[in-house]
Amino acid sequence: MLRSCAKRLRALGSLRGPLPCERRPALRSFSSKKVVYKDFSIPNPSWSKDIRLLFDEFMKKCEDGSWKCFPSCKYGSIQRTQDFKMFHLDRELTKEDLRTQTRLFTSSFEEGLGFEYVIFCNDVEKRTVCLFQGGPYLEGMPGFLHGGAIATMIDTTLGVSAVIAGGTVMTANLNINFKRPIPLCSVVVINTQLDKVEGRKFFVSGNVQSADEKTLYSEATSLFIKLDPDKSLT
Amino acid sequence: MLRSCAKRLRALGSLRGPLPCERRPALRSFSSKKVVYKDFSIPNPSWSKDIRLLFDEFMKKCEDGSWKCFPSCKYGSIQRTQDFKMFHLDRELTKEDLRTQTRLFTSSFEEGLGFEYVIFCNDVEKRTVCLFQGGPYLEGMPGFLHGGAIATMIDTTLGVSAVIAGGTVMTANLNINFKRPIPLCSVVVINTQLDKVEGRKFFVSGNVQSADEKTLYSEATSLFIKLDPDKSLT
Repeated sequence: MLRSCAKRLRALGSLRGPLPCERRPALRSFSSKKVVYKDFSIPNPSWSKDIRLLFDEFMKKCEDGSWKCFPSCKYGSIQRTQDFKMFHLDRELTKEDLRTQTRLFTSSFEEGLGFEYVIFCNDVEKRTVCLFQGGPYLEGMPGFLHGGAIATMIDTTLGVSAVIAGGTVMTANLNINFKRPIPLCSVVVINTQLDKVEGRKFFVSGNVQSADEKTLYSEATSLFIKLDPDKSLT
Repeated sequence: MLRSCAKRLRALGSLRGPLPCERRPALRSFSSKKVVYKDFSIPNPSWSKDIRLLFDEFMKKCEDGSWKCFPSCKYGSIQRTQDFKMFHLDRELTKEDLRTQTRLFTSSFEEGLGFEYVIFCNDVEKRTVCLFQGGPYLEGMPGFLHGGAIATMIDTTLGVSAVIAGGTVMTANLNINFKRPIPLCSVVVINTQLDKVEGRKFFVSGNVQSADEKTLYSEATSLFIKLDPDKSLT
């Protein structure tokens, strides 16, 4: 199964060019030594049966090439670190140990404690699906996920839909209706759909459901803007 | 300064009754032993000059009682843990080490790496202000904060406005316009304002600006619903 996932990742890379986290060598924390990339969107011991079953189901859908598994990486790249240095103006924060410690937010917790997820995409249907298990460090109301943690994974999944369609994009609007709180450590499925493209604008909508699809937790709409490479971000 | 903050925290408690994180004894990770609460919304060595200057400015505003400092706590309470057990249905995830490890999302990173913030509120003006420094573990695009991390702090600050006005509330809608990306480790100010109350509905809006107020990063509107204590959340 994991070999199959790796194969699909390579296939995705060869079809679309290297994905953002594959382009550059990763850094270990506290070191500039190049290391082999590790994809964090593959099962680990913290994954519950619910997410494993769904993962297997989607990996089967990947076999005919209609769906693809989208990889996730943990540590900042060399470019991340260089960009980070530019904005690290405070003396206390430019210490070497902090400069090399940038992490993608959704992969910044240790295994099982934060965002455990995997994203699959279907180019033809312009759909993206995220299987997400929110760990005990993502608590908001006692026993439930923080709204910001849900917003983070919704933004990430909607963003993948926009990235696949438009390349480098930035969230311009995110509008979420939270209908029910999500129990901590339960597994949810985030479904997103590219609705419309108008020039550099990508409109994507989605929802968050329980693993058995019986409970609708949230609904969201979003607008992403394709970045102009000739313009500075700040 | 810290003594003054502690004094204000006590004053806030005596005025409004204990705050959510003061009601119950905290747990150390991996232990059920009661420990003294630690407030994480006070300066630590990772705080830059920008956030320290703003903190001092708001602490001065607290001296006449018009503004109050809102405390933040890190570890889950006993109640959090009991609620957590209810939803921990998967055998692998019910291990003692995970059950006692719940953390409030916004306080779940080690010092300096994630959400460094402090919230001040003004009851008369129905305003809440969050001073926020996003650390290197909150990265989205290289060198910038993840949209989900910004959404998390916006939701938290808007939520404090609603909590002060209505008690226990839940986010029903969160609508954010992201205008510019926020450089990682920079300091931003989140301003929120309670706009309207309709029965159990609390409408709160806000924005995110740079510390010097020259850059508008985001704008947001939200709806919070006061929870009905007789109804189950799920």
